[in-house]
Amino acid sequence: MAASQRGRFITFEGGEGSGKTTQIMRLKEWLETRGIAAVLTREPGGSSLAEDIRSLLLKPGITMDGVTQLFLFSAARRDHVETVIKPALKAGQWVLCDRFADSTRAYQGAAGMVDQQVIELCETHATNSLKPDMTFLLDVPAEVGLERANRRRGKTDKADAFESKELAFHNAVRSGFLTIANTDPKRVRQIDAARSAEVVSADITAHVEALLDEADA
Amino acid sequence: MAASQRGRFITFEGGEGSGKTTQIMRLKEWLETRGIAAVLTREPGGSSLAEDIRSLLLKPGITMDGVTQLFLFSAARRDHVETVIKPALKAGQWVLCDRFADSTRAYQGAAGMVDQQVIELCETHATNSLKPDMTFLLDVPAEVGLERANRRRGKTDKADAFESKELAFHNAVRSGFLTIANTDPKRVRQIDAARSAEVVSADITAHVEALLDEADA
Repeated sequence: MAASQRGRFITFEGGEGSGKTTQIMRLKEWLETRGIAAVLTREPGGSSLAEDIRSLLLKPGITMDGVTQLFLFSAARRDHVETVIKPALKAGQWVLCDRFADSTRAYQGAAGMVDQQVIELCETHATNSLKPDMTFLLDVPAEVGLERANRRRGKTDKADAFESKELAFHNAVRSGFLTIANTDPKRVRQIDAARSAEVVSADITAHVEALLDEADA
Repeated sequence: MAASQRGRFITFEGGEGSGKTTQIMRLKEWLETRGIAAVLTREPGGSSLAEDIRSLLLKPGITMDGVTQLFLFSAARRDHVETVIKPALKAGQWVLCDRFADSTRAYQGAAGMVDQQVIELCETHATNSLKPDMTFLLDVPAEVGLERANRRRGKTDKADAFESKELAFHNAVRSGFLTIANTDPKRVRQIDAARSAEVVSADITAHVEALLDEADA
C-alpha cells in the first residue's frame, strides 16, 4: 500500500493509566491487517543507548532535578530519532511511539517547572525537527489514571519513580497535555480515554483511516 | 584562612596530554599547605549519577552524535553542580575540577560542530549560571599532547573513545579553547603546558596567590 513511501510517525501521549500501551498494540495489529508494517517503540528508550539512559532514569532510589531529567530525556530522544525512528520511516515503515516530545513538555515543563525556552530548544535538537504526523492524547482525569495504574501493579507492587508522584503533579501533567492539544489541534487528536478500550480503539482507527487515505492520494 | 567564606571554584581545561591531572593534584597539595581544604573532582562525573553517565559515554563500542553527547554532558554537569560543587563551595571548601563547561564548547562546539546557541543555553542551565572563579587552560600543540597521552597509555593500550580522535579534531579542540581564553581573559589563564610540570605548576600557583589575596581582602 504505502510501503514504498516514507512511513508515518504516530505518537501516543497521556498520563499514568491512560491506556497507551493497550492502544498502541491494537493500532499495530490493525495496521498489519491492512498490510502496513509498523515498528512499535517507546520513550525513554527505543535504541540501545536510550534504553541505557532509561535504566538510569528508573534506577531505584535515584533523585535528580527537572533540568537533569530534561537533558537525559533529550539525549535518549536524539539517539532514538537518529538511529531508529528516522531509518524506519525512510524504509517505508510506520513508527508507533509510546511517549515522545510532548511528554517532556508536560512532565518537565508544565509539571516540573523547567523553563519553556530551554525545553523548546532541547526539543528542536533532540528531535532534529522531526514531528509526528499524528499524536493521540489519551486523556483521563488524573484520579482515574492513577487508580488504573495502581490496579495494574497490584497492591503489593511498589510504584516506580515515574508513577509515584502525587495527584497534584499528575493534574499539572494533564493540564500540560491539554494545552498542547489545544495549541496544535492539527497534529494532536484528543481522545477521551476514560471509555472502554474498544471504543477508544475505534476512535483512533477512524483518525488513522484519514491518514491512510492521505497516504494513498 | 578563607574557611568561613564561600570557597573558590577553579577549573582545569585542555586537550589530551596537557597535564591537567598532574597540575590539579599539585594545586590541591599546595592549597593544603596553606590550610585550605580543596575538593578534587572531574567531568564528566563527580557525582554518583554523573559517574553513571560517564560510564555510558565511555562504554566500549558506543557511538553517538555530538548533540547526544552535549545532552549527556549537560545532564552530568547539572547533577554535579547541584549535588557536589555548590554544596562544597557553600561550606567554604575550594573546588578544583578537571574539565568543565569550556570542554563542551571546545569538543562538542568548536570541534563537534554543534550549534553554538544550543551549547550556550545548555551551559546556562547545566551550570545553573555557576562560573569558575578561575580557569587554567593548559595549552599544548595537539601533536605534543597526543604523543604524551600515547606514552602514558603505553604502546599496547588502546585509546579510549575520548582519546582516539584524529589530529585534525584535536587541533579544532585546541583552537576552540584558545578562542575561549581570548574571549574571557579575566577568568581564563592560558598556560604554556609544553614546559616542565614544575614550571607550569609555579605559574599556576602564582595566579592562585592573587586569588588568595583577594579572598583575604
